[in-house]
Amino acid sequence: MDHQILQTTRELIDEVGYPALTVDQVATRAGVGKAAIYRRYASKAEMAFVATMHDQQLPAPAGTGSLHGDLLALVRAFHVRMAAPAARALAPALISELSVNPELKSRFKDTFLAAEQAAFAEIIEQAVARGELAGAVDPAMAHLLLLGCLASALYILNLPVDDAMITDLAAATTAGITALADRHHSNPDKAEPPSRADKTAEPH
Amino acid sequence: MDHQILQTTRELIDEVGYPALTVDQVATRAGVGKAAIYRRYASKAEMAFVATMHDQQLPAPAGTGSLHGDLLALVRAFHVRMAAPAARALAPALISELSVNPELKSRFKDTFLAAEQAAFAEIIEQAVARGELAGAVDPAMAHLLLLGCLASALYILNLPVDDAMITDLAAATTAGITALADRHHSNPDKAEPPSRADKTAEPH
Repeated sequence: MDHQILQTTRELIDEVGYPALTVDQVATRAGVGKAAIYRRYASKAEMAFVATMHDQQLPAPAGTGSLHGDLLALVRAFHVRMAAPAARALAPALISELSVNPELKSRFKDTFLAAEQAAFAEIIEQAVARGELAGAVDPAMAHLLLLGCLASALYILNLPVDDAMITDLAAATTAGITALADRHHSNPDKAEPPSRADKTAEPH
Repeated sequence: MDHQILQTTRELIDEVGYPALTVDQVATRAGVGKAAIYRRYASKAEMAFVATMHDQQLPAPAGTGSLHGDLLALVRAFHVRMAAPAARALAPALISELSVNPELKSRFKDTFLAAEQAAFAEIIEQAVARGELAGAVDPAMAHLLLLGCLASALYILNLPVDDAMITDLAAATTAGITALADRHHSNPDKAEPPSRADKTAEPH
């Protein structure tokens, strides 16, 4: 029944769009009771999230041999998904729902977000092993710098996002991660009087 | 009448919170007709946006004498506002409204966002004048790297944001902006076979 509900949800999002989607429509077409849906999902947003974003496979690691190459491949793959009309249609409702629905928030954090952050952990680990980074960087921070930025550009700031911007974002994130690795691993003095920190935190 | 509507909106957001706020309440307490409100604002979200975020002054430029110092001061000042309960309460509704309301989107872009980006343009200009940057960087990109990231952390990813994270964000953004300046000004070969671009785009 799970599969049937989610498949029907995807079909209806394609046909009528997310805003017009209702739990009633899904129940009717899938031939299940509304109560059965609400036992599984607290809301239309959670049902749509699970149907569209939650069960997607992450892109396979690119293994380009460089931190910049791996980040660029990753952000390009995510951009295709995140800029798709279905994702753009769902994002505002999902953002809104996440802020008021603790159950959806922990599901989002423990599955979707954790899997994305794990992909960054792997890329960072490989860069450390190659000697590109002075040490590990918090994968959640690396994720924020690249995909958090992209989400903001697409869903909050509504900026035009083209491949030149994606490329700049990957380059800036590479430099940012490199600076954080230096900051947390090469620099014994983490406390920072601003003028000294400026000299040590900035790569040149 | 404008002032009265906006002042009443702010009072009611403080008293009942944004979700429970209605245009009716504002009309009644301000002693104006609902039609008068809707002639000015297309929706509750637009009215609340103008009342709370739109008319705030930007923080004065810090003038710390370094790119990193200026960015850190800026992001700290914005964090105080953006993490405030009123901003967190309004953000999801505003994000949602922006995605469907072209009038609010252009107001947001032409006033709020433009003013923020101008602050970045000034910081970048000073850094170029000091010789810290190889040349100017798109202020919209710099804004995205710092405040776009912060908005994502607060409003989409719901990450815990403390001063250590803010400090890392400023350091990463400084490195990112520096890398983009190098990329667009020092590097005559902007097209990029990945292996060469990696060497030129990453500061070491």
